[in-house]
Amino acid sequence: MPQDEYSLKHKLYVIIFRTDTPFGRWFDIGLILSILGSLLVLIMGSMESINEKYASSLQVLEILFTVLFTIEYLLRLYCSPKPWAYAKSFYGFVDLIAILPFYLALLIPNAHFLGVVRLLRIMRIFRILKLVQYIQDSNIIMRSLWNSRRKIFVFFSMVAILVTIFGALLYVIEGPDNGFTSIPTSIYWAIVTITTVGYGDISPVTTLGRAIASLTMLLGYSILAVPTGIITAEMSQEVKQQKKTYQNHRLLVMCPNCMKNDHEPDAFHCKHCGSELPSHEERVVKVNDTPSDYD
Amino acid sequence: MPQDEYSLKHKLYVIIFRTDTPFGRWFDIGLILSILGSLLVLIMGSMESINEKYASSLQVLEILFTVLFTIEYLLRLYCSPKPWAYAKSFYGFVDLIAILPFYLALLIPNAHFLGVVRLLRIMRIFRILKLVQYIQDSNIIMRSLWNSRRKIFVFFSMVAILVTIFGALLYVIEGPDNGFTSIPTSIYWAIVTITTVGYGDISPVTTLGRAIASLTMLLGYSILAVPTGIITAEMSQEVKQQKKTYQNHRLLVMCPNCMKNDHEPDAFHCKHCGSELPSHEERVVKVNDTPSDYD
Amino acid sequence: MPQDEYSLKHKLYVIIFRTDTPFGRWFDIGLILSILGSLLVLIMGSMESINEKYASSLQVLEILFTVLFTIEYLLRLYCSPKPWAYAKSFYGFVDLIAILPFYLALLIPNAHFLGVVRLLRIMRIFRILKLVQYIQDSNIIMRSLWNSRRKIFVFFSMVAILVTIFGALLYVIEGPDNGFTSIPTSIYWAIVTITTVGYGDISPVTTLGRAIASLTMLLGYSILAVPTGIITAEMSQEVKQQKKTYQNHRLLVMCPNCMKNDHEPDAFHCKHCGSELPSHEERVVKVNDTPSDYD
Amino acid sequence: MPQDEYSLKHKLYVIIFRTDTPFGRWFDIGLILSILGSLLVLIMGSMESINEKYASSLQVLEILFTVLFTIEYLLRLYCSPKPWAYAKSFYGFVDLIAILPFYLALLIPNAHFLGVVRLLRIMRIFRILKLVQYIQDSNIIMRSLWNSRRKIFVFFSMVAILVTIFGALLYVIEGPDNGFTSIPTSIYWAIVTITTVGYGDISPVTTLGRAIASLTMLLGYSILAVPTGIITAEMSQEVKQQKKTYQNHRLLVMCPNCMKNDHEPDAFHCKHCGSELPSHEERVVKVNDTPSDYD
Repeated sequence: MPQDEYSLKHKLYVIIFRTDTPFGRWFDIGLILSILGSLLVLIMGSMESINEKYASSLQVLEILFTVLFTIEYLLRLYCSPKPWAYAKSFYGFVDLIAILPFYLALLIPNAHFLGVVRLLRIMRIFRILKLVQYIQDSNIIMRSLWNSRRKIFVFFSMVAILVTIFGALLYVIEGPDNGFTSIPTSIYWAIVTITTVGYGDISPVTTLGRAIASLTMLLGYSILAVPTGIITAEMSQEVKQQKKTYQNHRLLVMCPNCMKNDHEPDAFHCKHCGSELPSHEERVVKVNDTPSDYD
Repeated sequence: MPQDEYSLKHKLYVIIFRTDTPFGRWFDIGLILSILGSLLVLIMGSMESINEKYASSLQVLEILFTVLFTIEYLLRLYCSPKPWAYAKSFYGFVDLIAILPFYLALLIPNAHFLGVVRLLRIMRIFRILKLVQYIQDSNIIMRSLWNSRRKIFVFFSMVAILVTIFGALLYVIEGPDNGFTSIPTSIYWAIVTITTVGYGDISPVTTLGRAIASLTMLLGYSILAVPTGIITAEMSQEVKQQKKTYQNHRLLVMCPNCMKNDHEPDAFHCKHCGSELPSHEERVVKVNDTPSDYD
Repeated sequence: MPQDEYSLKHKLYVIIFRTDTPFGRWFDIGLILSILGSLLVLIMGSMESINEKYASSLQVLEILFTVLFTIEYLLRLYCSPKPWAYAKSFYGFVDLIAILPFYLALLIPNAHFLGVVRLLRIMRIFRILKLVQYIQDSNIIMRSLWNSRRKIFVFFSMVAILVTIFGALLYVIEGPDNGFTSIPTSIYWAIVTITTVGYGDISPVTTLGRAIASLTMLLGYSILAVPTGIITAEMSQEVKQQKKTYQNHRLLVMCPNCMKNDHEPDAFHCKHCGSELPSHEERVVKVNDTPSDYD
Repeated sequence: MPQDEYSLKHKLYVIIFRTDTPFGRWFDIGLILSILGSLLVLIMGSMESINEKYASSLQVLEILFTVLFTIEYLLRLYCSPKPWAYAKSFYGFVDLIAILPFYLALLIPNAHFLGVVRLLRIMRIFRILKLVQYIQDSNIIMRSLWNSRRKIFVFFSMVAILVTIFGALLYVIEGPDNGFTSIPTSIYWAIVTITTVGYGDISPVTTLGRAIASLTMLLGYSILAVPTGIITAEMSQEVKQQKKTYQNHRLLVMCPNCMKNDHEPDAFHCKHCGSELPSHEERVVKVNDTPSDYD
């Protein structure tokens, strides 16, 4: 049952959740600018040389942005036709954790810097700019990762077992005197080594330790190929499938409330939360063909 | 010839090796908790700040867990219908080396920390949770690695020759004064470099040494692609084959004694060790279809 | 309308832009030698031990080369039938920025060392040597990168969000005392870590910091596979397509003015800037078949 | 024209170059043991603690091994039916450079350690053990690398240009005070960074330098995928082709003189150097089928 078209609640909904009215567009652009602004304030606040001079103004701005985002979140909850579906959706969750760090900072010092998670909200930018191709490509990447989640889990279980065993081995061989102060520290070393990061803050000194470390590296070297194999296989399948379903624009119809985008072309309501979907006129977005030439 | 269904030995077998009775399930869950507990004891024992305070209690717990696992191993040997097949199987071997480090510590100090290898026993968890999809995916990874074993061996022979030659080259160029104290140390440096780990504990200083080191890195960079190519090729083939043999559930019938899982659907006894396989009612596990959508 | 064949302007055009006359060839060879020479002068000028002795001669040579390249650029502009198309093309742009650093050095000290960008001009070497196979292979690489530009952009957006969040997290956990002096510095650490470079100039010290850092590494480890998957998928498609269009030599006809090389076999003028294309006799280049055997 | 079967020269040829007589086998086994022994002598000689005690005996052994290998090389030249073809072949070249470093050490101190290149001679082991599958797999890897040589060359040209430009950029930004002492040093830094080795012996300190360095890393990160894509594409094609030509055993007929192995099944003489190929009885080697199961 559609809401009263002329109620304040519905007007707010159209402005905040949808992008097909001038007000809605301006709201989204203002939101993104606020997010970028608040990020800049956070980052500048963390730089001592800047913070020394402008500490008080930065703090005022930070409070201002947090109040703004808190009001926005409450408004979203108020005017959403399905508040719970919104709150549970990915963007609803991100909108919440974007304001929490500020209140957390009352308990833990510096915790407000975690407010950088509001960067995740910027992903809505794809919606505003109607960057359909980008959404599709991002869907391919996400779906590839999702489809290979079990293989990646199995792979990481293997890695976890390997780093624990090699970590303990080097703890026994090298010992606390050479920097391997405990098994957790040695596991940290093993992860740094097997992922080929190699800080060098902890590194083996004894000949036996170096031999085992070399083995760890060569092992890391060859298992590096496993996730690549997994994801490459998935991705080439996804690319093939994309080519097939390119015509029917299924991915382009996005629910403004929970932002899921897998609706049938003839759907009027979101199959996930039941909100109204954009009208047909609005939802048809011209898909730019991939140019076959690059200059 | 099936054993006497009512003998103590058979009752123990059902509890310890199988998972289709309430007792068997509880035994497995208790086992996993014990393994995790003993791991925690080992890890806490390696952290000085904790070990200082609770050294004696941790030692008592360690002894307790080892006694427990020793008894369990002896019981498994006792009640297994094919003790030798069990002892030779992968899990039989792991069960043994999970208790050995404790006794080894009587000779070599700290060797009991190697008890973390009992983490490998946790892989049984897949059996208990009947995570069929996970077992299949883990099989794909293992089989890909196995099928490409010769290519990987050839590849590592090449790497071994390269690191020896480049190591000797930098030993001659840089010499002991710049950290390249011997050929084995220089080979260790070459492995650290070619795997792109790059600790920086040893690094070239002379111009010629840096030029050769750059060459080593660029070489490592391009041969990094070789194992990826090998495993990716294998894995995509495995994935294709999995899709074909998806229906016949061959992989799902696992021998409780030696845990091999490649039995025909109509098999009653393990083709590897001859133990009875689970009944048909038990072995049929619903395979969850891979969801085509990710949200 | 073709230019007067006998005018000075046209003669210069044939020498500078084209490669099918002896003079044109000599000009190109001289140009490449000049570029390599000026690079050598720059590099030697940056080495203190050499610069101490030969500072003045190196400076004179540097001025000489810059004057030479400036004159050459102006001549190119003068004699090009479509000066603006040349100036806008990739090589026109490179020709310009190859001389700018010298004049920039009047404002910023040492800026003339940026003159190494003239190395990009050397890419013309492929044109002179008619290394058709190399041009095709380079086209495949460039096209693969170009076709996957959107996926790579999405991927880097993800990486950007990840490094910002993990950077802020470690800034809060480790703090300025452990080297994480500000959020930008922490983001730099996160990039160093997630790309598995791992300098070790900044590395976590606290247990919680190391745990989060381990997570960052493992994450970097698995997303390392994403661009590989993207580009591998594109490249295998490109290779397939190359095999199909191998016969019609489309890629071999290169415009001497703007150096674009995607012309139809029957074209007489560049479809991008309208310059005359090389005559049919000249443009037909024998394509060496890829040898199927390697020794 | 076959040689006199009973001449000393031919007898030597059969022993040294061929593997189908008991003497030939023993010769090859003795050779490999000598190579490993001389390697051990070299490596032990480089370790100070060992060299201190046994310097003289190690030196005597080193001289002994070199004399042995020199005699062997001369004998090979003498008894080979086509000495020049042998000398020009890969193994002929390796046999030569395996003895040169010793004589070079008379001019350059420590140069005899380069004698580790004789490790390359060990690759003959595949021939002796008739590890046909290994030779085939090694052929696949080599052929993939060979077929993608042009793409790899183009790729490395790109990398060379990138590291020069980024190196110069950081030289200008950071300057000699922060470790970037010259352009060659900065190029070394750029290679260390773009290959994700990351020693940390040189790392940027200024904010701008770190920003540019981050860009370099992310660039390195994505171009890391290019050689992977190239080689993966080639390798999957090679694997497909191998499956097709599996039956006709072409790869198994190896010339004892120049060790090339691409002869037709009906060939009697090496098509490269004209030496007699092994008899049909000897050359047929049973190819072990790849097991489809891995436990």
